[in-house]
Amino acid sequence: MPMVHSFRTRKIGAPFTKEHEIYFETDNGELISPFHDIPLFAQSNVGGEVFNMVVEIPRWTNAKFEINKETPLNPIKQDIAKSTKELRFVPNIYPFKGYLWNYGALPQTWEDPHHMTKDTNAKGDNDPIDVIEIGDQVGETGQVKQVKLLGVFGLIDQGETDWKLVTIDINDPLANMINDIGDVEKHKPGLLKDTARFFRIYKIPQGKKANTLAFHNMPRNKAYATQLVYETHDYWKALVNGTAVNKKIQNLSIEGSPFKLAPNADMVVAVSMENNLPAAPLPSTVDEWHYIDKWHDGK
Amino acid sequence: MPMVHSFRTRKIGAPFTKEHEIYFETDNGELISPFHDIPLFAQSNVGGEVFNMVVEIPRWTNAKFEINKETPLNPIKQDIAKSTKELRFVPNIYPFKGYLWNYGALPQTWEDPHHMTKDTNAKGDNDPIDVIEIGDQVGETGQVKQVKLLGVFGLIDQGETDWKLVTIDINDPLANMINDIGDVEKHKPGLLKDTARFFRIYKIPQGKKANTLAFHNMPRNKAYATQLVYETHDYWKALVNGTAVNKKIQNLSIEGSPFKLAPNADMVVAVSMENNLPAAPLPSTVDEWHYIDKWHDGK
Repeated sequence: MPMVHSFRTRKIGAPFTKEHEIYFETDNGELISPFHDIPLFAQSNVGGEVFNMVVEIPRWTNAKFEINKETPLNPIKQDIAKSTKELRFVPNIYPFKGYLWNYGALPQTWEDPHHMTKDTNAKGDNDPIDVIEIGDQVGETGQVKQVKLLGVFGLIDQGETDWKLVTIDINDPLANMINDIGDVEKHKPGLLKDTARFFRIYKIPQGKKANTLAFHNMPRNKAYATQLVYETHDYWKALVNGTAVNKKIQNLSIEGSPFKLAPNADMVVAVSMENNLPAAPLPSTVDEWHYIDKWHDGK
Repeated sequence: MPMVHSFRTRKIGAPFTKEHEIYFETDNGELISPFHDIPLFAQSNVGGEVFNMVVEIPRWTNAKFEINKETPLNPIKQDIAKSTKELRFVPNIYPFKGYLWNYGALPQTWEDPHHMTKDTNAKGDNDPIDVIEIGDQVGETGQVKQVKLLGVFGLIDQGETDWKLVTIDINDPLANMINDIGDVEKHKPGLLKDTARFFRIYKIPQGKKANTLAFHNMPRNKAYATQLVYETHDYWKALVNGTAVNKKIQNLSIEGSPFKLAPNADMVVAVSMENNLPAAPLPSTVDEWHYIDKWHDGK
């Protein structure tokens, strides 16, 4: 029997401002961290094949929302560019509009920056493992989708391993027909090749070099991806029980963790200020379409 | 000296419902038709190179908004599919999201259905001439953009000639560098080829055959397009002065036209009900991404 989890969000501040935060709570109104307290496994069977995915960036959008590791309770916030201190938006790379899939993270996973991956020869990026979800439904920031694994790309970003799991929502009409990475090309021709191309070049408009993808730009299959999820889940366990080499992390409800936080008054007051403000206007630069020269494409 | 025209809209009903209508008025609050009363030429010099374009469908969107010829004052309304009687949405053709450009019409033009075009061997489609605008700014439905001509595609749709002018907003950062059709590929590589592909296949998801494009899928240049605009402007003149073979058309303020309407009380009451309602939710089918098999592509 699947264990039913359901989560709600509390939205503070106007979207597309630095004040915007999306907190998570259980059906009982208990505040939780989407990094640590949403279970990785969407079913009670720990060996099961369905995982929870926290949606950060809906398909076809640009605002770089992500689970914030530094803020207590790890709300989703829009990333701030290090160079400009401005809110970060992903550029539109012609012919695409924003991201090509729903993008997010698997809870209770961690890419250990002290662990060298033998297959990529690069260390973890200190984040929960990233996920793309290729179903038809355009997700919502803060939505928790139930997904199954299909494969994984090995992006090397600034010298760090940054896995991108490929998944599909178990409620998608094609979910029963897409069971491993080879089925994707059959039902969504071009999507994997374009995904690889997108990850290689999407930082070029902000003046960075093309990224590298491991395994000759090809994704690994479901078995490889599954192994990776278990591995990063184990790193996460070491993180929360304090055996990993690690800075203090923000955590609320994991029992037995030395980092367990007691809900504090300030935090509760802040989070109770839920106000669902209307979104701020997007900067006009988000309208731009960037045409990347062929050679950047690595072809 | 350019003659400054400026137009406002009055929005009635919730977007994405059958009640939604966008009327046009002058700065003085005088109600006008976007088909007949917005001047074709954006400058007082009738031989000038800048045209007004009425934006119907903003880039990256799906709702098939268009100037409604049958309704008095010709407000923009969302088209209703003949087969299903439902509001029409353009499907997302992978890898594109909605339309690839701002889409609309040139006012004071008409593709005469009684005129056989010798180059395409097909008759006009009884509408103002269609325009795509390739600048970076995502337009708004009802916006009047000032554009310059670059070229034109000759779409043959259900046996009718349906020209698609290629233009760029004169305020776009690249407007000074893109002066004819050959400049488009230089600055926006792939856009013209993808546009031709899009027009050929975009009705396939609704069960129709691929369209045909005249001139081996290639656009004609600026000179050809300019000739065409003058020609369709002349057909429009014949339409409004009653010399064209034509059903009665809706028209408000053209002096000397036998179809000139006096503002009537019902009309003014309807239009005074401006209410700017929030948009209705989009149907979930608008989220779908359609992958068209290679052979449909005509390659």
